[in-house]
Amino acid sequence: MRTLWTVLIMFLGVAVKAQSPEEMIRAIYDEALTSPAAYDNLYYLCKHTRGRICGSPEAAEAVEFTRQCMLDLDVDTVYLQPLMVKRWVRGKEYASVHSQIYGSFELSVCALGMSGGTGSEGITGSIIEVKSIAELKALKPGRVEGKIVFYNRPMDPTLIETMSAYGKAVDQRATGPAEAEKMGAIAVLVRSMTTAKDDVPHTGSTYFAEGQPSIPALAVSTLDADQLSAWLTNDPSLSIHLISTCRQYPDIESFNVIGEIRGSVYPDQIITVGGHLDAWDTGEGAHDDGAGCIQSIEVLRLFKTLGIHPKRTLRAVMFMDEEVAQRGAQKYFELAKKNNEKNYAALEADRGALVPVGFGFTSTPEREDSLIALSKYFAPYGLSKFRRGGGGADIGPLGQLGTLMISYIPDEQRYFDFHHSANDNVEQVHPRELQLGSAAMASLIYLIDLFDL
Amino acid sequence: MRTLWTVLIMFLGVAVKAQSPEEMIRAIYDEALTSPAAYDNLYYLCKHTRGRICGSPEAAEAVEFTRQCMLDLDVDTVYLQPLMVKRWVRGKEYASVHSQIYGSFELSVCALGMSGGTGSEGITGSIIEVKSIAELKALKPGRVEGKIVFYNRPMDPTLIETMSAYGKAVDQRATGPAEAEKMGAIAVLVRSMTTAKDDVPHTGSTYFAEGQPSIPALAVSTLDADQLSAWLTNDPSLSIHLISTCRQYPDIESFNVIGEIRGSVYPDQIITVGGHLDAWDTGEGAHDDGAGCIQSIEVLRLFKTLGIHPKRTLRAVMFMDEEVAQRGAQKYFELAKKNNEKNYAALEADRGALVPVGFGFTSTPEREDSLIALSKYFAPYGLSKFRRGGGGADIGPLGQLGTLMISYIPDEQRYFDFHHSANDNVEQVHPRELQLGSAAMASLIYLIDLFDL
Repeated sequence: MRTLWTVLIMFLGVAVKAQSPEEMIRAIYDEALTSPAAYDNLYYLCKHTRGRICGSPEAAEAVEFTRQCMLDLDVDTVYLQPLMVKRWVRGKEYASVHSQIYGSFELSVCALGMSGGTGSEGITGSIIEVKSIAELKALKPGRVEGKIVFYNRPMDPTLIETMSAYGKAVDQRATGPAEAEKMGAIAVLVRSMTTAKDDVPHTGSTYFAEGQPSIPALAVSTLDADQLSAWLTNDPSLSIHLISTCRQYPDIESFNVIGEIRGSVYPDQIITVGGHLDAWDTGEGAHDDGAGCIQSIEVLRLFKTLGIHPKRTLRAVMFMDEEVAQRGAQKYFELAKKNNEKNYAALEADRGALVPVGFGFTSTPEREDSLIALSKYFAPYGLSKFRRGGGGADIGPLGQLGTLMISYIPDEQRYFDFHHSANDNVEQVHPRELQLGSAAMASLIYLIDLFDL
Repeated sequence: MRTLWTVLIMFLGVAVKAQSPEEMIRAIYDEALTSPAAYDNLYYLCKHTRGRICGSPEAAEAVEFTRQCMLDLDVDTVYLQPLMVKRWVRGKEYASVHSQIYGSFELSVCALGMSGGTGSEGITGSIIEVKSIAELKALKPGRVEGKIVFYNRPMDPTLIETMSAYGKAVDQRATGPAEAEKMGAIAVLVRSMTTAKDDVPHTGSTYFAEGQPSIPALAVSTLDADQLSAWLTNDPSLSIHLISTCRQYPDIESFNVIGEIRGSVYPDQIITVGGHLDAWDTGEGAHDDGAGCIQSIEVLRLFKTLGIHPKRTLRAVMFMDEEVAQRGAQKYFELAKKNNEKNYAALEADRGALVPVGFGFTSTPEREDSLIALSKYFAPYGLSKFRRGGGGADIGPLGQLGTLMISYIPDEQRYFDFHHSANDNVEQVHPRELQLGSAAMASLIYLIDLFDL
């Protein structure tokens, strides 16, 4: 039976090779748009491994689930890369504002990843609002000492690319708490990184220097940030009571999950396509980045189903621990270097699964030009943004090996409604948009491999 | 006070004229992206005039609300164009399947607009499933006589543009019931026109010839259409009980709603921007087409707020009765013709309010070329689909006057999840996507007027 099947697959492979690139891309889209596989897999991942922050039992379940997904595809190899990850665990969290003028209200908050705890009794302090780290640093240290610092600069709504608006605001969350700690602050509140006005706080990592005390640091919803700011205008002496019983445990073992279709001509040349398997503990990690993982697995499925035999080895990688310390990316890079791998190209899908608009590329200018010229194949499918500049946290280290780095770029207008929050659930992913993304990724990899780009 | 204000506006106008087109477009986007006006107006329209099918009290409220919106903008003229519209009213509706083999289940249905009623007792009949009108017509008439015809051809998921998939499936709903009636069918069920698999039926107009009896015709949700089809495979003799007590009332007066900024150089040349104010009675008409109306009003607001004085008269039009008989479009055209208006250009926004991707144009090839070349101004804002072919049900008649016809084109992957159904509510409209659409429309009209294109 297996032999007959193999013969059939080979026949399909031959049939497929007779097609033009345009016909093959059409076949890839047809298969992606008519199969429930990707959405079904994403649905399972979201509902059964919700909150899969690195080091969690849910992350371990996600490792096993995606491993099984790839085993089911009967690709040539499926394996794990062990690595050690941090283990930060959210606790009880609570924040309330108390004003002599206005009364009290409870803030919608969530602790930032890697932030410190308050102890179960919590802490109370008065608050100082700033719009930037620069504004904080310009204050006399005595004004910050013993206080809770409140970073409240919104993402700029006039920037068309919300990723840019995020990039220009996220320093408040990433290094704002460490900077506040240096000036004697006892805790930090940060306005959530989102363009939405709602009650949902958005978490994310914050970074303290080696040896620096991790003070409590919490994200506050945009609506509550606005209300807190309004109260502060007339009552600068209001106080906040904060509880966050999060804590860190010793590092724990986890894994990158890898599936490979061996190359038929240059098996030693690797094309990586991947996303990150860990996700923030507050949500399902549907857009960030369950979708990128499942789309990478779908690329393997599309190649297998359509009998496309890549010349180079095609590797789908579920990177572990993108959100906290990028240990999976580091491990993948270290092993690639140690094993003298030829990493031909790497595509990262970690910008959500809204409707696809294009790809970004980082390589030599000549190679980038030839990749940007591939846009003509994608015009019938609505992708037009083919541009210089590709990469991402997980494939970034491979740049040191001269690997072509590619970013998958979907639309991003709604992305920060979900990002790092309880809103990031599978219901926010549209099946067609997910499918169109997998098809675009598979088509691009097919063309790069076919034309030796 | 008013004089001072007028001077200030004039000053702003002068200041604004000193800007480059690129700077003006940036100013339009900045204003659109930082104002809550458009979303607030759409929210009000959706929540206070839900179900505003032509001839309904809700449609009358929508006329008054949008009139007030434009009066509040202090544009040069706001007025109504009276017309007579049909008045079809949904009643109780119910459908259940009865099988000797499987038992019974209730279908999720809604009557098609202009369909006939069953009477309060309902009707019962056996069912014949077809995939197309051609398949029906190929049957011997005796096979259809006295039966309920079930059209069940899905929208093609492999078509990238869902509008095309809709266009290739909608004949089943639009003329399928009339064709079935000619062959003696007693009623029709039609698979809902949507790419989604869910429990929500999608209505829409169906058309009978003058004097032809309107038989009952109902849309059935895609999930129930699939289940009905599966049951029919093993039990062709199953029966359906249908109730639909919809009915038609005499025609009633309604209105197109119009607001104008008079042209400063060629006041007799009209640039129309519009959407349709009526919406299906099953939902809020947020994407279809509250958004197009509110975006058209927002174009006026952007011109006023930024002190842009168009050379030509800019007219925002809320067309009445697009969904049923396009009487508003007809009235607008008749008056334009009667008054010898010079209709320079008309832009229709009636494809929802998802993220903008471009515009379509219908005019002479030379004029289309010069309009398509405007795409360079929109690249920084993510629009790239500038193509031949523009128009729409409401501006279509103006084509007879040689008017440039423009379609606003947003992304359409999710559009048929909402279209003509209870899903079409304001929560499905993203504020930024709505704002980006208004800004794109205002920018395009500004450029066409500025460069005399």
